[in-house]
Amino acid sequence: MSDDFAAGCAFVEGAYVPLARAGVPVMDYGFLRSDATYDVVHVWDGAFFRLDDHLDRFERNVSALRMRSPHTHEEMRAILIACVAKSGLRDAYVEMILTRGVLPLGTRDPRRAINRFTAFAVPFVSYASAKQKSSGFHVMIARTVERIAPEAVDPTVKNYHWADLTKGLFEAYDQGADTVILTDGKGAVVEGPGFNVFCIKNGAVATPDRGGLDGITRRTALEIAAELGIHTQEERVSVERFLNADEAFLTSTAGGILPITRVDERVLGNGAPGPVTLRLMEAYAAWHREGRYATPVPYA
Amino acid sequence: MSDDFAAGCAFVEGAYVPLARAGVPVMDYGFLRSDATYDVVHVWDGAFFRLDDHLDRFERNVSALRMRSPHTHEEMRAILIACVAKSGLRDAYVEMILTRGVLPLGTRDPRRAINRFTAFAVPFVSYASAKQKSSGFHVMIARTVERIAPEAVDPTVKNYHWADLTKGLFEAYDQGADTVILTDGKGAVVEGPGFNVFCIKNGAVATPDRGGLDGITRRTALEIAAELGIHTQEERVSVERFLNADEAFLTSTAGGILPITRVDERVLGNGAPGPVTLRLMEAYAAWHREGRYATPVPYA
Repeated sequence: MSDDFAAGCAFVEGAYVPLARAGVPVMDYGFLRSDATYDVVHVWDGAFFRLDDHLDRFERNVSALRMRSPHTHEEMRAILIACVAKSGLRDAYVEMILTRGVLPLGTRDPRRAINRFTAFAVPFVSYASAKQKSSGFHVMIARTVERIAPEAVDPTVKNYHWADLTKGLFEAYDQGADTVILTDGKGAVVEGPGFNVFCIKNGAVATPDRGGLDGITRRTALEIAAELGIHTQEERVSVERFLNADEAFLTSTAGGILPITRVDERVLGNGAPGPVTLRLMEAYAAWHREGRYATPVPYA
Repeated sequence: MSDDFAAGCAFVEGAYVPLARAGVPVMDYGFLRSDATYDVVHVWDGAFFRLDDHLDRFERNVSALRMRSPHTHEEMRAILIACVAKSGLRDAYVEMILTRGVLPLGTRDPRRAINRFTAFAVPFVSYASAKQKSSGFHVMIARTVERIAPEAVDPTVKNYHWADLTKGLFEAYDQGADTVILTDGKGAVVEGPGFNVFCIKNGAVATPDRGGLDGITRRTALEIAAELGIHTQEERVSVERFLNADEAFLTSTAGGILPITRVDERVLGNGAPGPVTLRLMEAYAAWHREGRYATPVPYA
């Protein structure tokens, strides 16, 4: 473990380098066409959570874009683990990326590019501040921008097409909100920048079934709910229904399960994280403590 | 002029470097969120075409994304010219990019990034092969993917959100077509990967007014048509109308005005570039020969 790597360790073109030195070629279509897919796993207290689920999803998405990783599943797994081990980070955010790559001069045919695998581990930065985690997020429902439709870009193939989410985020900041939830433009909530959303009414949990990422933390929340005997439904969730929920929460690899306590000007419940949300959060933390889905990092 | 630069010259972090060495930091949100805007100018026979129009559009788009270039208009202009001069290229494709930049560790707030200007000149690679230029393009109308809607991402702010266009392109290749045109999902044609589209019926030219880039070559084609007394209309263009056109063409900075002679299985006119298209192509070449809108490059 080198101090150089403590601020982040990247794997670029077959070598481990300090993150500050890691780059993508300007000519890589992964940059110039955002022609790329990625995945993010978290490491908490020295262990990956659901590493193979993230790798499996990543490999499915690579195929969906008709790309091919230069590395096998096992090799990528070893690279991700090595990035964390070299960094020495006990809590990390670990990202794997496949970009289309650089095209040979004289062609514009993406089939002729050699796809490029990049990975990095950085210190874990929670999606939530301590205050947001304890008191809940104030979210805004975006009114001037809608989420890119699945008919244009498949949101289940994790991608960097975030201009809509970024625009919404700026508008949320303008309004004094913490973050934003985008709709499908037809009255249903979809997702926010980096998270799935859930709402709860009379103890039953609902989350949109369409238009957003098939998040692994989302999946974990549904599994936890099932184990706790809480009823869940994946279905269309209207803005109206979200605004009138008893409770709401968001899920993200970068923060786990996090309470939402205010939507636009509407305060949910008594303004504190609700009882179902708290049960799910507690179970999510417990699953980590118990080592469920854990892959320990072999630090040097 | 150095041989190192003949394959392309980039301006990165204040220095001119051979293109092969030019990179974007992996952590730049311009990559990780495709949070960037760009513009492309061409140099033909030693002169830029409409350089200031491209710069003006770029600066408008930078503002639209609430970014700020570290360089003034005049500085960016000088950098683009220097990239070409150093490369020695007589025909070049010159790209300027502003990315959101790298965020300070510990935040996810894009307002805290320092935006980053990058530019490069590469040898001009026409959108069209010699055969496509003389015989016309075979385009496919995409059926399984639609263009990202303007309600999600404003297409007039030039951006790298190309997953829909890339998917369409792969499908066009599958069908043996040269390229693809995407629709708005409601029966109207919009644009293709890197080009605007036009169709002609009974001598009158029409091009979509919505959903695509406000292309500078598109604008040039409309200006040329006006000068030649050809009637043009910017309006909704249905797929049906496009399929039944007498002629069609596409416009791109990377190729100028280029004929389309086949749409799906439909051959337009007699299968050769049509007379109106040829007049526009000839005038486009003449405007370049005459030095209209030209900014000569001061090669060393």
